[in-house]
Amino acid sequence: MSSNHTPASASVSVIGLGLMGQALAAAFLKAGHATTVWNRSAEKAERLVADGAALAAAPADAVAASDLLVVCVSTYDVMHDVLGGLDEALRGKTLVNLTTGSSEQARRTAAWAERNGVRYLDGAIMITPPGIGAETSVLFYAGDKAVFDSHEPVLKLLGGGTTYLGTDHGKPALFDVSLLGLMWGALNSFLHGVAVVETGGVKAQEFLPWAHMWLDAIKIFTADYAAQIDAGDETFPANDATLETHLGALRHLVEESEALGVDTELPRYSEELMERVIAQGHAKDSYASVVKAYRRPVR
Amino acid sequence: MSSNHTPASASVSVIGLGLMGQALAAAFLKAGHATTVWNRSAEKAERLVADGAALAAAPADAVAASDLLVVCVSTYDVMHDVLGGLDEALRGKTLVNLTTGSSEQARRTAAWAERNGVRYLDGAIMITPPGIGAETSVLFYAGDKAVFDSHEPVLKLLGGGTTYLGTDHGKPALFDVSLLGLMWGALNSFLHGVAVVETGGVKAQEFLPWAHMWLDAIKIFTADYAAQIDAGDETFPANDATLETHLGALRHLVEESEALGVDTELPRYSEELMERVIAQGHAKDSYASVVKAYRRPVR
Repeated sequence: MSSNHTPASASVSVIGLGLMGQALAAAFLKAGHATTVWNRSAEKAERLVADGAALAAAPADAVAASDLLVVCVSTYDVMHDVLGGLDEALRGKTLVNLTTGSSEQARRTAAWAERNGVRYLDGAIMITPPGIGAETSVLFYAGDKAVFDSHEPVLKLLGGGTTYLGTDHGKPALFDVSLLGLMWGALNSFLHGVAVVETGGVKAQEFLPWAHMWLDAIKIFTADYAAQIDAGDETFPANDATLETHLGALRHLVEESEALGVDTELPRYSEELMERVIAQGHAKDSYASVVKAYRRPVR
Repeated sequence: MSSNHTPASASVSVIGLGLMGQALAAAFLKAGHATTVWNRSAEKAERLVADGAALAAAPADAVAASDLLVVCVSTYDVMHDVLGGLDEALRGKTLVNLTTGSSEQARRTAAWAERNGVRYLDGAIMITPPGIGAETSVLFYAGDKAVFDSHEPVLKLLGGGTTYLGTDHGKPALFDVSLLGLMWGALNSFLHGVAVVETGGVKAQEFLPWAHMWLDAIKIFTADYAAQIDAGDETFPANDATLETHLGALRHLVEESEALGVDTELPRYSEELMERVIAQGHAKDSYASVVKAYRRPVR
């Protein structure tokens, strides 16, 4: 094994044993790593200790036990609280922070780590606890590339889709919320569609394959829009349909929803959005032009 | 060729020559069908006539020319206007209406057709005019199954994904707006995500493959939710994450958007929606429970 890889037997400390922290520690244990765990309420460690984990009496003990520290607590403030006063003990250690927070919190924590000689990776977990360890599970990391590389084999135990995003520690948080946002937008409109077709006695599972086909079509649209946005010249050629064509079609959804007694707030949100972007001169442009309303909200 | 199929040489009349009507007529012409066309302003027929179409002087001539009539005009009112006074001429003909409208307009038109002995199919076109004729293009139809079957080969010229949805003439309109709604929801949240990651210097095309991966994950979530909804017992087991877990994660998107100066209206819409559904007792339920807010909007 090359010297810049974590040895299979390397010790890992996991701080924070919510459902996610427990899943992380269990994955390390399962792969044969000496695993030290700490949680504010120690009873959350019981199962892991039964499976061979060492229980740290205090955060300082967890920090002392391993060169690789994985933290997954409720907030960044809690993390700083837990590690408070341990700056000397942390020097030279690798701290992998999987706590959910903002890009700014991640960058500020990276600056603190830099000042204290702590090797710091910030990460975001794109799956729920039962997905930890699966081949397809995605976890994003950012920070120093050499630090990531030296721990990639052990981090990969948490998910086969372990991905290094670059040196900007804020990037995992940005990707995390943006992808979740895409999910909520798609789920909301899917469930709205279910409510619409239900009025015609259509089962959700009959609508489902068409929705899935449509999600594939959306991949094609978004590929075109992403290229238009990246071109950076603020032109959005309507290769598929103009924004005013979209608005015309959308009004059918608004009217249909109203006639059926189904929610109109969601389609009216889109209507108002498109009207606003059209008023900025994008009637003949592609749907990609809507990005402007999100970048610089003008209300 | 079996007698219940439209012969390859069968005559078709296309009424309405917007971009879509022109594409429909061109597809019939290309396949060798005698094609008669009519449009309020005849100059829209020039290209088609040059390619071999017969130009009808009046709607009555287009109706007389073929047993299969395909109508694609701007609204149902325009269609009834164009066909006004032709009830006798229409008797026994097959009228395929591809005009965009509401499910109620489709059902009312079907009732009118029934009273007048017109064989009626209502349809919805799920692609833009350049997609007409492609193997993957989807068009939905509803009405009498025998009528659809007898014209399926010629209708399939318009798109390989030609699909019969059943006898309820309102269904194509319901599927149309519901799928478009899914598209706008996904596109809006994709573009919002682009605006968020752009603040970290991330190109839309760097975000794109992750968004596509996420759309595939959304297929898995929606399959579970559709099954839960169809079970009909109003229980929504949180197999992936509870609604309150979603809300907690969403608040990171709201705060991140606010901190970055990116639009907060879209995530706040989702926040308010989830809060409302949680207030109805669904904190521990899956995201599928949000369908209740769309079915019976309570504000």
